[in-house]
Amino acid sequence: MTNLHAEQLEQALQLHQSSTVRSLIDGINPADLADLMQHLSLKAQLSLIEQIDSAALVMEFLPLHSQHQIAEAMAPQQLVKLISAMPSDDRTDLFKLLSPHLQRFVSLHITEEKRAQIQTLARYPEESAGAIMSSDFVVLSPELNMQQAIDELRRMTTDRETLYLIYIVDELMKLLGVISLREIIQNPPEQKIKNVMRTDLVTGLVTEDQESIAQKLSHYDFLALPIVDDAQHLLGIVTYDDAMDVVQAETTEDFLKSSAVASSPGMSIKTAPILLLYRKRVFWLVILVFGSLLSGIGIAHYEDTIAAHIVLVFFLPLLVGSGGNAGSQSATLMVRALATGDVQFKDWLHLLGRESLVALCLGGTMAFAVSILGYYRGDMMVSVVLALSMLGIVLMGCLIGMSLPFILHRLKLDPASASAPLVTSICDATGVVVYLFIASQLLL
Amino acid sequence: MTNLHAEQLEQALQLHQSSTVRSLIDGINPADLADLMQHLSLKAQLSLIEQIDSAALVMEFLPLHSQHQIAEAMAPQQLVKLISAMPSDDRTDLFKLLSPHLQRFVSLHITEEKRAQIQTLARYPEESAGAIMSSDFVVLSPELNMQQAIDELRRMTTDRETLYLIYIVDELMKLLGVISLREIIQNPPEQKIKNVMRTDLVTGLVTEDQESIAQKLSHYDFLALPIVDDAQHLLGIVTYDDAMDVVQAETTEDFLKSSAVASSPGMSIKTAPILLLYRKRVFWLVILVFGSLLSGIGIAHYEDTIAAHIVLVFFLPLLVGSGGNAGSQSATLMVRALATGDVQFKDWLHLLGRESLVALCLGGTMAFAVSILGYYRGDMMVSVVLALSMLGIVLMGCLIGMSLPFILHRLKLDPASASAPLVTSICDATGVVVYLFIASQLLL
Repeated sequence: MTNLHAEQLEQALQLHQSSTVRSLIDGINPADLADLMQHLSLKAQLSLIEQIDSAALVMEFLPLHSQHQIAEAMAPQQLVKLISAMPSDDRTDLFKLLSPHLQRFVSLHITEEKRAQIQTLARYPEESAGAIMSSDFVVLSPELNMQQAIDELRRMTTDRETLYLIYIVDELMKLLGVISLREIIQNPPEQKIKNVMRTDLVTGLVTEDQESIAQKLSHYDFLALPIVDDAQHLLGIVTYDDAMDVVQAETTEDFLKSSAVASSPGMSIKTAPILLLYRKRVFWLVILVFGSLLSGIGIAHYEDTIAAHIVLVFFLPLLVGSGGNAGSQSATLMVRALATGDVQFKDWLHLLGRESLVALCLGGTMAFAVSILGYYRGDMMVSVVLALSMLGIVLMGCLIGMSLPFILHRLKLDPASASAPLVTSICDATGVVVYLFIASQLLL
Repeated sequence: MTNLHAEQLEQALQLHQSSTVRSLIDGINPADLADLMQHLSLKAQLSLIEQIDSAALVMEFLPLHSQHQIAEAMAPQQLVKLISAMPSDDRTDLFKLLSPHLQRFVSLHITEEKRAQIQTLARYPEESAGAIMSSDFVVLSPELNMQQAIDELRRMTTDRETLYLIYIVDELMKLLGVISLREIIQNPPEQKIKNVMRTDLVTGLVTEDQESIAQKLSHYDFLALPIVDDAQHLLGIVTYDDAMDVVQAETTEDFLKSSAVASSPGMSIKTAPILLLYRKRVFWLVILVFGSLLSGIGIAHYEDTIAAHIVLVFFLPLLVGSGGNAGSQSATLMVRALATGDVQFKDWLHLLGRESLVALCLGGTMAFAVSILGYYRGDMMVSVVLALSMLGIVLMGCLIGMSLPFILHRLKLDPASASAPLVTSICDATGVVVYLFIASQLLL
């Protein structure tokens, strides 16, 4: 349906049938219109942007690279109008991508206030609160009463929904309190803001990590978090929708790391260049070769044992694989629990104790199963070797999987790098040695 | 610091020093107070709940099992007061856990309206929009003007922030439109709602899956989504903070699945019973044994080749492991892209083509590396066998990893079950056969 819609729209735009265009996009939500636009040619996109009133709103929902393409292709004068209507955080992100020539043009033609906003916001490092905060917040003085506040808000021309939390500041923009629009509406008209506003403020520091800001928003269920400098001056706000985007991006990063793919903000497997995908994956694949080499060295060391009991090779993948699988489970449980804040690093010893119990149960079950297989395929002695090895391998796998995220954290590395492939490689090498050592002791 | 704070608070509560208690909790945000409460004894929790005005708000931030514990321990009459002040969705969740005796008592003593709400909300199945929606929404008639709307809102006694989106309904609660509080404030006082309200509504169906509701909220950046029945009657709303919780829970589920741990909503590795953790993990571990057995069978089949060229065993973990690692990467990239909506199932063929190119690059790199190792450890022929095997194994691993999520989807299973351990097991078995087949052809 979307494809058909897009084709009709493309045609109507090419033929300049503005009434058809209007009827096709009538009542479509900006977010959906942005989706639709991505099926259009650049020429049609430009023509559409010219025709719609909510162009700035639609732009926000487009991926940054599409915004950039459109901005570079449109008439500079028109771009100034469009970019002026965008919210300050999105405006700054787009501005930073423009060619130097266009940046100069836009700077010259937007209002002084907006130019200053861009300069301020562009200054903050990536991944900091400053880089995602918006300047579209509403401030009032503590001395106003509720009726005056409503009158003031009524005069403001913003079309953003950021006026539900109103920040109360002094003349130097120092943050004093916060009041919600609900409280302004529901308190008696002559009541003063300073008597109602909440002063137990939760704020974010402008240099704070985005992830920590997003966690605060989600922890307190806030609509927006005020961002301040060291002296408590209000610089901007981060809204819940931006926080949701941050959470989604961070989660994808952790997800990819869990299978040893290097993170790449905003990378799409549908459109990313083949060589980028290659680069994101080859690093860990090659690193992991060394882990496997250790397994090979372990095997080579016990070559005589293997040659004498070739049946051992039959069970090698099973035993070694089980250790890796159990270890991956432990590592993922741990990495995710750390990411959601369910556990902290100080819980490690306690968790290691619990994990040992779980591992004993898992190892016991697996040992029992494999010992039966061993008895049928080999003999009683093989069965004992398999059961003992399985128990040892699963136990070690779990403890390695549980410990690796903590060790990485201690080494100031990201615990999420304790990926399933990494854990598997380490557990494989350990498993080979445990298995063949036990076999060499009991079978010769 | 929290621990010290908790100890002081515990003591003050035990000794009934209410002024000390007050000074200790003064200015603490309800979310933080809930965190603090979890360090207190049940007795102290009860005493604290009795003393604070915002008890219902604090309850919302407590985990459900703590809410339940407190509810069962407190005086029934007091519970009625507390549960009445909670938002309707949380109230219903707690009510469902109460003992039959307490349920009867609460039903008898809360208002008729709230009893009806509980009955309605409790009816919807888990994981549906109905199960997380709230009845705390605000409706107005389309005939009111802005001033009348403000007067109406002022009279409402809600202390919830859910009145920023106001739903416009007819006498039968059929949803006609939506207007934001900002629009009510900023339009001329005599303007009628029906001339301003938006009618291009995005709604959720009461039977719709929670995950789909959360995706809509995040896609459109809405504060809340109205939930309707088939005939467009407004039944409730789902707010952005509930959507964030759903996203977090679903992500954790996918994460655990990615390492073959069965999902368990709300399970914490810190507190879950050992046997529950065991059960969540043993199923896949045992299943994966069969995958490893296939590897073993492959090895057994080529026993003669191995016996003749024991050097092959040295490289077995390396080759087979690389296939599993590359396959895990592919599967995780795919599962995550499906979860975030970045790719759809119809993109599969296109993606398979791209993946083949990436796999060729990865396999080529790995083949080159392993052929050098093979030359030093064995001879020219071994080196050729290794290079060819590596290329084939990585290529197959990637294609298996990319295809498995799609196959699971076709079989009506969750694509996220294409876990790293599962992919690794399948790739291992395939890898063994590819490697030893090539070796048996070229080396004998």
